[in-house]
Amino acid sequence: MSLEMDCLPPKRGIAPSCIATEDDLDRLEQHADWILKEVGIEFRGDQEVLDLFQKAGATVDGERVRFDPGHAKALCSTAPEKVTFCGRNPVHSIELGSDSVCMSPGYGSPFVTDLDRGRRYATIEDFNNFVKLSYLSPWIHHSGGTVCEPVDIPVNKRHLDMVYAHLRYSTKPFMGGVTAAFKAEDSIAMARIMFGQEFMQNNCVIQANINLNSPLVLDQVMSGALKVYARANQCNFISPFLLGGAMGPVTQPALIAQAHAETIAAIALTQLVKKGSPVVYGNFLTTLDLQSGAPTFGGPEASLGIAVLGQLCRRMQLPLRGIGHVTAAKSADGQAMQESADSMSAAIAAGSHIIFHAAGWLEGGLTMGYEKFMLDLDRCGMVCTLVKGLEITDEGLAKDAYLESGPGDNFLSTKHTLRHFKAANYRSPLLSDTQSFEQWSECGRVSAEQRANLAWKQALQDYKDPGIDPGVDEELKAFVQKRKYAMPDEWH
Amino acid sequence: MSLEMDCLPPKRGIAPSCIATEDDLDRLEQHADWILKEVGIEFRGDQEVLDLFQKAGATVDGERVRFDPGHAKALCSTAPEKVTFCGRNPVHSIELGSDSVCMSPGYGSPFVTDLDRGRRYATIEDFNNFVKLSYLSPWIHHSGGTVCEPVDIPVNKRHLDMVYAHLRYSTKPFMGGVTAAFKAEDSIAMARIMFGQEFMQNNCVIQANINLNSPLVLDQVMSGALKVYARANQCNFISPFLLGGAMGPVTQPALIAQAHAETIAAIALTQLVKKGSPVVYGNFLTTLDLQSGAPTFGGPEASLGIAVLGQLCRRMQLPLRGIGHVTAAKSADGQAMQESADSMSAAIAAGSHIIFHAAGWLEGGLTMGYEKFMLDLDRCGMVCTLVKGLEITDEGLAKDAYLESGPGDNFLSTKHTLRHFKAANYRSPLLSDTQSFEQWSECGRVSAEQRANLAWKQALQDYKDPGIDPGVDEELKAFVQKRKYAMPDEWH
Repeated sequence: MSLEMDCLPPKRGIAPSCIATEDDLDRLEQHADWILKEVGIEFRGDQEVLDLFQKAGATVDGERVRFDPGHAKALCSTAPEKVTFCGRNPVHSIELGSDSVCMSPGYGSPFVTDLDRGRRYATIEDFNNFVKLSYLSPWIHHSGGTVCEPVDIPVNKRHLDMVYAHLRYSTKPFMGGVTAAFKAEDSIAMARIMFGQEFMQNNCVIQANINLNSPLVLDQVMSGALKVYARANQCNFISPFLLGGAMGPVTQPALIAQAHAETIAAIALTQLVKKGSPVVYGNFLTTLDLQSGAPTFGGPEASLGIAVLGQLCRRMQLPLRGIGHVTAAKSADGQAMQESADSMSAAIAAGSHIIFHAAGWLEGGLTMGYEKFMLDLDRCGMVCTLVKGLEITDEGLAKDAYLESGPGDNFLSTKHTLRHFKAANYRSPLLSDTQSFEQWSECGRVSAEQRANLAWKQALQDYKDPGIDPGVDEELKAFVQKRKYAMPDEWH
Repeated sequence: MSLEMDCLPPKRGIAPSCIATEDDLDRLEQHADWILKEVGIEFRGDQEVLDLFQKAGATVDGERVRFDPGHAKALCSTAPEKVTFCGRNPVHSIELGSDSVCMSPGYGSPFVTDLDRGRRYATIEDFNNFVKLSYLSPWIHHSGGTVCEPVDIPVNKRHLDMVYAHLRYSTKPFMGGVTAAFKAEDSIAMARIMFGQEFMQNNCVIQANINLNSPLVLDQVMSGALKVYARANQCNFISPFLLGGAMGPVTQPALIAQAHAETIAAIALTQLVKKGSPVVYGNFLTTLDLQSGAPTFGGPEASLGIAVLGQLCRRMQLPLRGIGHVTAAKSADGQAMQESADSMSAAIAAGSHIIFHAAGWLEGGLTMGYEKFMLDLDRCGMVCTLVKGLEITDEGLAKDAYLESGPGDNFLSTKHTLRHFKAANYRSPLLSDTQSFEQWSECGRVSAEQRANLAWKQALQDYKDPGIDPGVDEELKAFVQKRKYAMPDEWH
């Protein structure tokens, strides 16, 4: 199968879970309304945003914005139900919404780690490597954003090299800069060089991930970026960042309602900036170790909360973003794989249309692991297989196999098994060693991490440049150079 | 919280998944009927069983039994929808069926392993240890069966020491011997010493796990044990053992239909032996690595198959047995924890009322790991928390926390957080290390397995003997001694 054929995201064939009843959901929406009316949300340092809300009928008191019950939700109603997110190669375009399930790698880590060199600050070389590994994987459908922080490049210029890498080394959809309005503008300007101004007026080719400054705050950095993306008709992903007990109460019902309130308030803002601009309902909700204050991942409370947020999102008829293979573990050990598996399963149960942090995460996002990345890619493949569900066909019911092989017989050599031998199961994942104890011992007890270490090196060797129009490449490089000259280096 | 309070199994508050449509389920039932009519099931070496089926109207041809469509299912209709499974301490009695979710440890392993002594043949001391660890855990509700093979005891006498250990060191429900009719009879005789003949006529206190000799065979060893348990009105768990491609076709729809056909044929037999005797619909369905022929666990195909079997079981209105933390890995590493997590999640999605192999499994069941056991117990706790679902209460919505802490504030010190501090989240599991990289490095990068190593030793030290009536204990010991004297040792 060619890379292009193989990379299509799966269509969901299994229903999301319904943890909460319709009455529960009503009550949670009412509580979100109570929060929005009685407490409100602060939009800090951005008068334009406050003016937009005041004009729309919200109550603005200083930087605090309060909404009458139902008002914030009503303001969201112009957001589209589905978003087509175009890749540079149209075969990599993805649809967000309805029955889609797409995967995107981890992002935001200042460190990287691998078995050879250990944990260290990330560089642009690491960044390019992760873009290439995501490009190669049939189970990753979106190139991510700051897949790791290239700390060898000044902080005010990194976004230029990162956007260049996504556009140059991959052809999958990606995320642009958000940590300052000028970074958002630069990102969109570079996308325009690739896709053209006219195309981008009607098509989404780049996105922002807008994290709220939870609890109940959106600051001018985030609202600045949000406005840039919305005005360019590009997609805003809105994600509260909630660690229960710190950025909100420690009980899930409150956290869910708060996350919903924060999300719909910021989605409302996207629609006030530009009606009909594409938006995705996001979440980042997890628990704290209440002894140490450190975030924990994959726990049952967060899984339930995330599933219920998915139900609230379906009521809004908006695309949903989840988070995937996340963990607090320092290496790709048992803790890492269990926490990651459980977090991803929660995102799937929630009905997520796109799942960020699907590969590489360690240490609560502080580190991208090369080996963890490869192991996670494999589980993305398994999840993509699972989520398609089960098709019942005559061929799958295998009458001929039973007529060939009877009670007590082995089915391995039946014609039916031979016909399905190659495609029946997800190919043995990297993680999985099925050798006997004796074979495994004789072969030096090779760990999954060690297998993954060879795999990422081989993958980088196998990377085939997707190519780029030389004129476009020159224009992109000239833009990056011009912008870099225009600013003094900033390192903090 | 006392051990007794804490050990109650959770009540399921989240719905099982519905992978297959009602039409799909009809088609799978029809295919099971086709298998039962056109291929049939062989009941080998047991004329009484063949006579029972012939008398009930099935077509018997040699040892092959064929059923008209709907006949096998109709014969199952007298099996009860729920089973109350009594523990020696009534607080440990469990209900199988409806909204129950119970956990039981792994069983069947000839080897054990721990970090200190490595992998070795299991002994009765190991057996007793695992019974004690299960007894101590609030997340294990059933003591298991052959939790490991005590290979230091002759093969024809082990069942006596194993049943004694379950009765003596635990007060939870358990599984008796099945690998010969006399072992089944001994097991039941020992249960009668503890519970009394009269009580056992109307109450289930011991169970058999009847694995079919898949494909489509039940031999006289298994049917012999099945008859003994059914006649004593004790519970038969019926579980086909299917590795797709070997004991059945490689495609899931066929495997599901075959598993269903095998299960209902054997359940029908329990009802012909004793109408209304308790029975549980089991499954053990997984994939093969088709390159090596080795079993694989936690894969997406098996997860889908298991979920659909759960739907077929719900149509039968019978209690469902699933399998939990199973893996092909040789140690409690990333592979072990991911495969285990995914297998257990599939059992939960399927709606299982009791989940076997919930703790300890390594190497496809060849080895019980002490450290794996402890790590699995913790995930059982998380799963038991998850499956209860989410309750929305005023207290959980935390209005007072929002009135105390506003936008941008930290919620850690609110009165609401302090009220819920202890009980809000599942306590930090053993597996999970939430330290910073620096702390973790300074502390010697202690792994989850190392933490678990300390934990099982501590638990065995903490074990408190539940006590036993001295007269009953004497009678049990005398029975064991008498039976051991009556047979020469057999070691194979």
